[in-house]
Amino acid sequence: MSHPDALPSSALSASNTTTVREAVLDLLRAFGMTTIFGNPGSTELPLFLDFPEDFRYVLGLQEAVVVGMADGHAQATRNAAFVNLHSAAGVGHAMGNIFTAFKNRTPMVITAGQQARSILPFDPFLFSGQATELPKPYVKWSIEPARAEDVPLAIARAYYIAMQQPQGPVLVSIPADDWTRPCEPVAPRTVSTEHRPEPAVLAQIGAALDAAQRPAFVVGAAVDRNGAWEAVRALAERHHAAVFVAPMSGRCGFAEDHPQFAGFLPAMREKIVGLLAGHDLVFALGAPAFTYHVEGFGPHLPAGATLVQLTDDPQTAAWAPVGTSAVGSIRLGVEDLLARPAPTTPRSLPAPRTLAPRATPEGERMSVAWLLQTLAELRAPDSVIVEESPSARPVMHRHLPILQSETFYTMCSGGLGHSMPAAVGVALAQPQKKVIALIGDGSAMYSIQALWSAAQLQLPITFVIVKNRRYAALQEFAPTFGFAPGAQLEGCDLPDIDFCALARGQGCDAVRVDDAHALHGVLRDALAATRPMLVEVEVA
Amino acid sequence: MSHPDALPSSALSASNTTTVREAVLDLLRAFGMTTIFGNPGSTELPLFLDFPEDFRYVLGLQEAVVVGMADGHAQATRNAAFVNLHSAAGVGHAMGNIFTAFKNRTPMVITAGQQARSILPFDPFLFSGQATELPKPYVKWSIEPARAEDVPLAIARAYYIAMQQPQGPVLVSIPADDWTRPCEPVAPRTVSTEHRPEPAVLAQIGAALDAAQRPAFVVGAAVDRNGAWEAVRALAERHHAAVFVAPMSGRCGFAEDHPQFAGFLPAMREKIVGLLAGHDLVFALGAPAFTYHVEGFGPHLPAGATLVQLTDDPQTAAWAPVGTSAVGSIRLGVEDLLARPAPTTPRSLPAPRTLAPRATPEGERMSVAWLLQTLAELRAPDSVIVEESPSARPVMHRHLPILQSETFYTMCSGGLGHSMPAAVGVALAQPQKKVIALIGDGSAMYSIQALWSAAQLQLPITFVIVKNRRYAALQEFAPTFGFAPGAQLEGCDLPDIDFCALARGQGCDAVRVDDAHALHGVLRDALAATRPMLVEVEVA
Repeated sequence: MSHPDALPSSALSASNTTTVREAVLDLLRAFGMTTIFGNPGSTELPLFLDFPEDFRYVLGLQEAVVVGMADGHAQATRNAAFVNLHSAAGVGHAMGNIFTAFKNRTPMVITAGQQARSILPFDPFLFSGQATELPKPYVKWSIEPARAEDVPLAIARAYYIAMQQPQGPVLVSIPADDWTRPCEPVAPRTVSTEHRPEPAVLAQIGAALDAAQRPAFVVGAAVDRNGAWEAVRALAERHHAAVFVAPMSGRCGFAEDHPQFAGFLPAMREKIVGLLAGHDLVFALGAPAFTYHVEGFGPHLPAGATLVQLTDDPQTAAWAPVGTSAVGSIRLGVEDLLARPAPTTPRSLPAPRTLAPRATPEGERMSVAWLLQTLAELRAPDSVIVEESPSARPVMHRHLPILQSETFYTMCSGGLGHSMPAAVGVALAQPQKKVIALIGDGSAMYSIQALWSAAQLQLPITFVIVKNRRYAALQEFAPTFGFAPGAQLEGCDLPDIDFCALARGQGCDAVRVDDAHALHGVLRDALAATRPMLVEVEVA
Repeated sequence: MSHPDALPSSALSASNTTTVREAVLDLLRAFGMTTIFGNPGSTELPLFLDFPEDFRYVLGLQEAVVVGMADGHAQATRNAAFVNLHSAAGVGHAMGNIFTAFKNRTPMVITAGQQARSILPFDPFLFSGQATELPKPYVKWSIEPARAEDVPLAIARAYYIAMQQPQGPVLVSIPADDWTRPCEPVAPRTVSTEHRPEPAVLAQIGAALDAAQRPAFVVGAAVDRNGAWEAVRALAERHHAAVFVAPMSGRCGFAEDHPQFAGFLPAMREKIVGLLAGHDLVFALGAPAFTYHVEGFGPHLPAGATLVQLTDDPQTAAWAPVGTSAVGSIRLGVEDLLARPAPTTPRSLPAPRTLAPRATPEGERMSVAWLLQTLAELRAPDSVIVEESPSARPVMHRHLPILQSETFYTMCSGGLGHSMPAAVGVALAQPQKKVIALIGDGSAMYSIQALWSAAQLQLPITFVIVKNRRYAALQEFAPTFGFAPGAQLEGCDLPDIDFCALARGQGCDAVRVDDAHALHGVLRDALAATRPMLVEVEVA
């Protein structure tokens, strides 16, 4: 449910005395969106005249950073983030992370400046031609209201749309002269944000669960996003299901130290089929069935298995090649399943998975495994990992377990440049938690300006840069496309980057470590810092 | 005219024996596009298998940098640049500078990776949903061919479309599995790239010129872009016209030391009318009539003046509120006008404009005027200025004159983040010329990763950072929107940035100067460097 905090005074009056600017600010207060993520330009200036003290402006030095911070903030607050971008140029720079926000299903109300209405006929400087077209197809809705006085209504509608599952970004283009125009205030309303899946289809899924001998759950990002972590755990325990994390999941939906945790599915059809072999029922919860990274052939499921799915995304339900899909909130759907009588058929627990052997330091050289294992030992269980280090992800799965809900974020899109600024947004939303940004060197360079925002905001984030001097994930992937192992690959080497210099040049403390034996002390100190700290870790 | 360098051997054969990859590489050779600007991802890998030695891959660490470099390269080579981006994530990050390339009218063939066709039904990881929709409205054309074997034809068509005036970016989305598929080779063709304006309308413009008493020319970016610098100079001299540079012009169309040069028009209606007062004919050449930055009211021209326009952009011709417009190549149109008999009516030369007084160092503090004047004295006349320092632009107009064609580039869009990477592209295209990037601190942070590319390519660019620790143009602009002068403006302060550290952290030499008296020596040495060098100039 979207939650208007309080009806602002102006909204209670029906008198036609307010301005677009005041009406919008009152709505933002009611919606709990008093943090504005942005990078300012002339077409947005009127919004900031006499900037109200109960609002906070968070500046990003490039719009990829702005939207990345907003994404992290929205996910960590479970409320839409408010973003203000500079007409077409700003929305353009932001599109990469808007794409990611759309894939992440992050609620976000993006406003974009537009030139004044009276000069739009003359293609003026900085104007946005077809402003509603630019963000497509990666917004749920976009509008440039036909009249200034309809801007507050558009903001309200944008918020309600963004917050409805599956959530996502929306865009409102606002001509610069609209802000000072008179309009009627808009009262915030209650609009539902989730829906309960269709009972008849849930009953089919419930019956399939009851009848299964060896069920497997595949949990995706929507489990955590929909607040269904506890319900899914209870359902898995009731059914003695083996629980896999879905391929390329942007959040974690199940405790990785739970005895029923079965590991991670890779994004390859044949490997998924192999890992699920032996299960007679596969239940995809808040996950596509399945996310593939490369071509695959043959069946999507092991022989003898059937698929059921519960997803908040109508499109995901529609394209799944096989199985029965219920569309709706994961939490509400699983609660309905839990309300059914528990099955009486005895069912054995899945065999516990084999854990990776502990990493050891290989001389002084640093392995990624050693880095992540050390981090796992040092960090608080409720600290938050915001990760974007594709080649380290499989190692992380073995050595850095996620244990609690809302403690792991990455992007679902495959687009680099999200997580470093997202970590800033998460830390801003949750000052009581330690945020650890685990970022590859290639990823870090996409949104390196996020360090400046972290430093200005004095957020005690630990940025761990996994420095392997290359786009390692891509190099490791190349043999899939017929490259000889170790073959020269254009554009994959990243020499001559000193991340400590890049951090200090933006006012952020930094330390470098390449000795495996020194890592523990360096990381411990970094995690204890009360300001942002970058740790450049030179890995072998 | 687009210029196939040579017919590649495979194109001469009609045998159906080549692959999509070979056919595309042959076309790129024929079109002179053997430099690939990109940032690689898995969906593009097959293009790079056995990367041919006659091609060069130029890596940018963020797609804003990739497209900015390509833009500079295309403008400096007068040929389309070839860009390879990573599916939706890469195109998304690139959209800001694709917007600028569209406004700059820079020819650019952008290819975007796409997932393999066989898994597109399953919304796979990294795929681009509605790939042709994403870059709109800022491409001239976009396509994802329905069959693999049609990819080479799409590349050819994309090139011919990009190169036709008004030039601009185009996008071809290419599924990863297409590259190895068999196809017929595509022979490069000759396709015209410009057209001669309609004779009857040119005759009207010619007659108006002949009849005018005090004509004013307003020259825009298309003059330089269309190679019309010399022709426009000859026409201006024949007609004794006062020559203004159009508002926000992305290139320079007239020597700023020419006795008929009349100065720069600002992007404000009333000020334009005031500056053009006294002229009975205004001839907009390769320029909109006019580009406005803020609302204005009243007539678009001074009383008694009429407007004629020659533009390569049909849209610009269509929206002009008054006057007669001919659409076509500026060069061909002006040559036709020069072919008319010279007017016999005697006409006085315009009064020479008043030059700004020379700047003096104000103690040790550095004024922007002193910086730019010193740079003007030190630089070679054919050195190239690539500028993006909005608050310094008016000062540049007074103290750093542009003297030759193709020696000034900035963005026409108003979007920051273009010129730092564009300078890299220009330098790559013209190794014999000195390239000077004149960049504001706010602008620099948008695409700071361009320094890494400059360092890797060892291009002897001088990056002059005009460091005023704020978004100064925006602050200076605020009173237009009712802000009190000096009022606090959210998100406009840029403290704690050390550009020398940011440069050195990317392998680029750097030096800092804040003493006006030391500037001359520092700049002289920087301009003599044979590697990229960043000069951080702390201005008052």
